Amino acid sequence: MGPEASPGFTAAELQAHLGGELIGIAPDRRLRRLASLESAGPDDLSFLASTRLRARAAQCRAGLFIVSAALARALPAAAGRLLVSDPYAAYAAASRWLQARQQALPPAGFRHPASLIDSDARVHPQASIGPGAVIEAGAEVGEGAVIGAQVFIGAGARIGERTVLHHRVTVYHGCEIGADCLIHAGTVIGADGFGFAPGPHGWAKIAQLGRVIIGNVVEIGANCAIDRGALDDTLIGDGCKLDNLIQVGHNVRIGEHTAIAGCVGIAGSAVIGRRCMIGGGAGILGHLSVCDGAVVSAMSLVTRSITEPGLHTGVFPLMPNAQWERAAASLKQLPALRQRLRELSAGARMPDPGPDGPSPQGPPANDSRD
Amino acid sequence: MGPEASPGFTAAELQAHLGGELIGIAPDRRLRRLASLESAGPDDLSFLASTRLRARAAQCRAGLFIVSAALARALPAAAGRLLVSDPYAAYAAASRWLQARQQALPPAGFRHPASLIDSDARVHPQASIGPGAVIEAGAEVGEGAVIGAQVFIGAGARIGERTVLHHRVTVYHGCEIGADCLIHAGTVIGADGFGFAPGPHGWAKIAQLGRVIIGNVVEIGANCAIDRGALDDTLIGDGCKLDNLIQVGHNVRIGEHTAIAGCVGIAGSAVIGRRCMIGGGAGILGHLSVCDGAVVSAMSLVTRSITEPGLHTGVFPLMPNAQWERAAASLKQLPALRQRLRELSAGARMPDPGPDGPSPQGPPANDSRD
Amino acid sequence: MGPEASPGFTAAELQAHLGGELIGIAPDRRLRRLASLESAGPDDLSFLASTRLRARAAQCRAGLFIVSAALARALPAAAGRLLVSDPYAAYAAASRWLQARQQALPPAGFRHPASLIDSDARVHPQASIGPGAVIEAGAEVGEGAVIGAQVFIGAGARIGERTVLHHRVTVYHGCEIGADCLIHAGTVIGADGFGFAPGPHGWAKIAQLGRVIIGNVVEIGANCAIDRGALDDTLIGDGCKLDNLIQVGHNVRIGEHTAIAGCVGIAGSAVIGRRCMIGGGAGILGHLSVCDGAVVSAMSLVTRSITEPGLHTGVFPLMPNAQWERAAASLKQLPALRQRLRELSAGARMPDPGPDGPSPQGPPANDSRD
Repeated sequence: MGPEASPGFTAAELQAHLGGELIGIAPDRRLRRLASLESAGPDDLSFLASTRLRARAAQCRAGLFIVSAALARALPAAAGRLLVSDPYAAYAAASRWLQARQQALPPAGFRHPASLIDSDARVHPQASIGPGAVIEAGAEVGEGAVIGAQVFIGAGARIGERTVLHHRVTVYHGCEIGADCLIHAGTVIGADGFGFAPGPHGWAKIAQLGRVIIGNVVEIGANCAIDRGALDDTLIGDGCKLDNLIQVGHNVRIGEHTAIAGCVGIAGSAVIGRRCMIGGGAGILGHLSVCDGAVVSAMSLVTRSITEPGLHTGVFPLMPNAQWERAAASLKQLPALRQRLRELSAGARMPDPGPDGPSPQGPPANDSRD
Repeated sequence: MGPEASPGFTAAELQAHLGGELIGIAPDRRLRRLASLESAGPDDLSFLASTRLRARAAQCRAGLFIVSAALARALPAAAGRLLVSDPYAAYAAASRWLQARQQALPPAGFRHPASLIDSDARVHPQASIGPGAVIEAGAEVGEGAVIGAQVFIGAGARIGERTVLHHRVTVYHGCEIGADCLIHAGTVIGADGFGFAPGPHGWAKIAQLGRVIIGNVVEIGANCAIDRGALDDTLIGDGCKLDNLIQVGHNVRIGEHTAIAGCVGIAGSAVIGRRCMIGGGAGILGHLSVCDGAVVSAMSLVTRSITEPGLHTGVFPLMPNAQWERAAASLKQLPALRQRLRELSAGARMPDPGPDGPSPQGPPANDSRD
Repeated sequence: MGPEASPGFTAAELQAHLGGELIGIAPDRRLRRLASLESAGPDDLSFLASTRLRARAAQCRAGLFIVSAALARALPAAAGRLLVSDPYAAYAAASRWLQARQQALPPAGFRHPASLIDSDARVHPQASIGPGAVIEAGAEVGEGAVIGAQVFIGAGARIGERTVLHHRVTVYHGCEIGADCLIHAGTVIGADGFGFAPGPHGWAKIAQLGRVIIGNVVEIGANCAIDRGALDDTLIGDGCKLDNLIQVGHNVRIGEHTAIAGCVGIAGSAVIGRRCMIGGGAGILGHLSVCDGAVVSAMSLVTRSITEPGLHTGVFPLMPNAQWERAAASLKQLPALRQRLRELSAGARMPDPGPDGPSPQGPPANDSRD
């Protein structure tokens, strides 16, 4: 991981992998690592992909930059540059290429002697199974899949080709994960949804008979909880990216290529469209729908379905506490202020601002009935 | 899990289990599975429990419905119906009945050879212990309990009869879980509460000497964290239901049959009453009390004790971002607006709206001192 | 853990450990346990450290109190007292002392036979390794470290001296944890940061090549997720205290002795100063900075960098739901109200309150580009 672990690479090797035009650097110049603008030294590769970082790039000591022609003039004159059309995508490709060179994955077909694979599980000969992993009867693990240490794969669950489950991922019985997915440590897929019927003796359990079905090329971060459906399945579409500590309730459906930042909670039976972006800590109430391309700001609560793409926000602005106390106090008196203003307007013979109209938000529901 | 896994059941078998009156269907008609109104086909059982779903039920192709007499007229004329007084409770019972028919639990008395049970632990002969489970000295596991793969049960902890701990649940030393509980994967019970004393060299650790005591028939979702008490115990009452990713701080006490949705955080020493409902992502500050029957909306922060049952809300309404920017800007100027209005009122010789009075909310505390 | 587990201690033993002046109690008086003001009985030790608890202390039946001279008069006249200058710090010290007397740690040098230690790992002979723990090649574990059951320590990771990793902690490859740290069950250190480049076929993965570096004397609660850096490292300074279920994004840097309550989410590349306090459920957007000594209220979202120490808040006040509906409706009409007030002011020939000025808050960003 540290610099000493990196074998390094030449500018020509990088160009061979990424394409682009190499300028101002010898092709056989050896570079040590990919580094940020702040930390790169003369033997490092860095990148510039945003105009707002031009000033920082001008101070950067990197020996070679991935950059577009338009941004290249911001760089120090002596620095090498690999000109590409999309430097951010090229940086992403370079990062993956370098990781693959550095990281020793377990050999395909590896079975740790301390893994516990049921004789009725179908594990592809070219899948790799780590120490302490438990794979129950009827489960399937596809070709090239990498099952980390202490992973649990329940009865009848299916793990697609080349999917990587990091340490301690739990996949409950019957759930399915597609191909080329990456699930990080501690995430739980397929625990019971939160369903109870009220009754005279308290809450009666509703057995959760559905599954979780996850598409291809999905990434899920650490310590998430994706619940199985009550009757139908919980669905996560191809290409979705979920950060850490995310809760996905039962029967939720998430469209392709939607990205969800950390600590988001999605209540049961919500339907989220394709290519949405949900900011960190946001919440989506149950049974709502969010249209394709909608963007929800961090820590905003979606209390009604969103029908228009674009950014939606509901956050109390941060203030020094004394100012907040005044604003919060005024907020409580706001309806009275409106009434007073209405009276003043009448006295001034101005048109009345009219009634409040219906509440803009129903009360955020606390709904276990779905 | 899939349809192929289900042996199916007859209408008469269902009636024998649920009671009720069977109408418009042959008792020996075989049904395949319990399905939602959206996905049910002619060989499936569905249910209608809410007037707001009548239109959807009218389109449903299910062969048999669990329904009340009052709602039955909304169903397709040709569909079979099992008339019951509380169709939602009957659906819950049906779901549990079908799960029990489908799901193969480990046999009572099962000991996986890769489990690690201390010779001084008292595990009931009819409890089942999964692979990789660790049970330390002095721990007790009751009759019929099911301990999943890779579970950790610390020294002196007690697990009640018929309680199920799913994969990778951690129960720290000395904690107690009652009978008939269900704890989902990754949940941690009894880690240290967050207690430190400020000092000249930084925060000094306060050892957490209490325990977590969980009552009977409690369900806790995946990846929760329930902290042990500092001196007294953290208490969760009988019949409570907790969703995923919930934080319960040290010394918290939660009354019977309270339901808490996902991503809620409850700070130390809060006392929550019986039959409360806490919406997803809500927060409760430390040392507060919430009375019996209180309902807190999703993502609302409880900053003062709640003394009246019913729904309490504190959420900035979601808006298109441009509208939010205007509202947020105005909010900061609200105290100035009030002052201006007061001056105008004086000019118009209207009674003064009076002073602000004390702040309605103390500042949300950041209190590690308890 | 219960009273029966405690061997008890004499007043003189306590004084020998804590210092202070013992008054009104025989030095050889034996005490059973350290207890809260509510639960202490005549054979217990309790403490009074806050004036606001004086009334409660006056009712407490404890046989001995840790207390300051200033607060001692609030206690029952017959109670023993150990007079100290800082009773809260003395309580903390007493709690640690009693825990050390009660709790049996595994012997230094312990290796559970079911642990899986790579032959190329460097585990100090005086470190203790629990059942099911996996330690990969090149990893280092320092003297006196305690590695709990089912812990995973990836290739090349380093665990400092006397650091305790509780059950099921995951430390990804290359990450480093300093000395005297305490990490609770289920926490994941070093999973990939949330980094993707948008492209024509969806999100392209950015390999996360940095590490997590944690200083000395850091405590982290249960089920947290601390992501590795994209290029540079994620850094947590000496003496930091993190509660449960906290998300720390890639490249975040947290200064020394900062305390973070449960359920906080910190987005990528945020820089947090020293001795800050972040309330439970708060959020900090990416690429922002928070100055030394800043305090953020619970569930507040930091949307701009904080440059002044002290308390900052952004929380919609909790209200009975009907009142909230009116306030939320008024909030949406607030800009129109301001306009109306401006018109009235003009009619009354009062000075215009002026334009809104720029928005006080940029939109909370949803930024995966760092």
